[in-house]
Amino acid sequence: MKVNVFSTYENVLESSLKDQEVVVIDALRATSTIITALANGCKEVIPVCEIEEAVKISRTIDRAGFLLGGERNSVKIEGFNLSNSPLEYTRDIVDGRTVVITTTNGTRAIRKAAQANEVIIGAFLNISAVVHHLIKVGKDITILCAGTEGKYSIDDIVTAGALVQKLTDDYDGDIDIDDLSITSRILYNDYKDDLKSLLKQSYHYNVLVKAGFENDVAFCYQKDKMPIVPYYNDGVVRVLKS
Amino acid sequence: MKVNVFSTYENVLESSLKDQEVVVIDALRATSTIITALANGCKEVIPVCEIEEAVKISRTIDRAGFLLGGERNSVKIEGFNLSNSPLEYTRDIVDGRTVVITTTNGTRAIRKAAQANEVIIGAFLNISAVVHHLIKVGKDITILCAGTEGKYSIDDIVTAGALVQKLTDDYDGDIDIDDLSITSRILYNDYKDDLKSLLKQSYHYNVLVKAGFENDVAFCYQKDKMPIVPYYNDGVVRVLKS
Repeated sequence: MKVNVFSTYENVLESSLKDQEVVVIDALRATSTIITALANGCKEVIPVCEIEEAVKISRTIDRAGFLLGGERNSVKIEGFNLSNSPLEYTRDIVDGRTVVITTTNGTRAIRKAAQANEVIIGAFLNISAVVHHLIKVGKDITILCAGTEGKYSIDDIVTAGALVQKLTDDYDGDIDIDDLSITSRILYNDYKDDLKSLLKQSYHYNVLVKAGFENDVAFCYQKDKMPIVPYYNDGVVRVLKS
Repeated sequence: MKVNVFSTYENVLESSLKDQEVVVIDALRATSTIITALANGCKEVIPVCEIEEAVKISRTIDRAGFLLGGERNSVKIEGFNLSNSPLEYTRDIVDGRTVVITTTNGTRAIRKAAQANEVIIGAFLNISAVVHHLIKVGKDITILCAGTEGKYSIDDIVTAGALVQKLTDDYDGDIDIDDLSITSRILYNDYKDDLKSLLKQSYHYNVLVKAGFENDVAFCYQKDKMPIVPYYNDGVVRVLKS
């Protein structure tokens, strides 16, 4: 089994993801939010790239049955029901509903991976469940990080590192991990007992804290709090039945 | 002062390098080889992207005065005088001569940076000299790693980390380092007393060892052995007079 980590999705060739198990990670906050919504009973999440697309799709769904969520520049979009904060996606709000979501990076990364064998939505919240599934499937793995403003982002990479560590712990066969997998695992192991001290040094964390989302960060780094495996198929994210 | 590290050069916008001090790192082995040649009395190095270009330029130089160097797939190019191994660029061979060199990644990364305020050639061999110069200039810095086969490569990143560590130690003013700078510094500090144990895990190291170049790796990671600052200007790399 080969494992590759990419720090951004923009320059990854779509064709190189064919036949791969792709795990998309946008830890702060898109994939954490999607996982939270689905864990709290949301029926399905439709990730779209543009605001106009979100509004258009929402018109095809029964008004009571859907919610519009997402952000631009970390902030809720005008006229939308929810922002990109996982704390807003509580059971009383999302249960049984469809969420149409658009975010700066996360939803774009998910759509980029559409040619993969399977596209899994990953975050700290569901690492062990995702690894369990990846081992069951047994294919080569690409971890596709969303990045921040087109750049390598520690919040994603340390999440990838936790996944690589769990994978190398649990997988019995030969495993060949690339240089960024190795680095992400080192980073995770250095800081796993005090993730905040790492995140505080990083760019994206400070952008979010400045915008008032410090509680979101604490929420997103709860390991295995939501042991579900969401997958993206035909434009929709649903929970994989185990 | 801002510091950015890029793990590959391919997708960096040339315009974003304008007004920056750019340090190009291809630790294994192009920039280490260029530094070694110049430290051993080579008059100038002309880095070119294509083999045909190297041959064409060499025709304009007096036959006794130049050497053709470089590699494809880690191996010497047919008809060339030297490969990309720094161990071949000894004083008795390169002193007073011009070297025209073409390598898979390193020379391309150097040419990519042509719009920068200044393009400096960096490796483990000259880290402190480069940092001393960067601090004297005082501009924002981009560390442009060559990468391996278009991907993040630990041999370059740990070199960038040594540079970032020295820079943050020695610079007195405010310094704002990006997420990959932070990661590279962590990686370097984790392994600075036993670099080989890190490199042995990495892809490019193993490619070179398999091709018989283990001694090159040991040579390239001698810190500050060649305290010169080579810079690229108008198609030619020369040593900066201090």
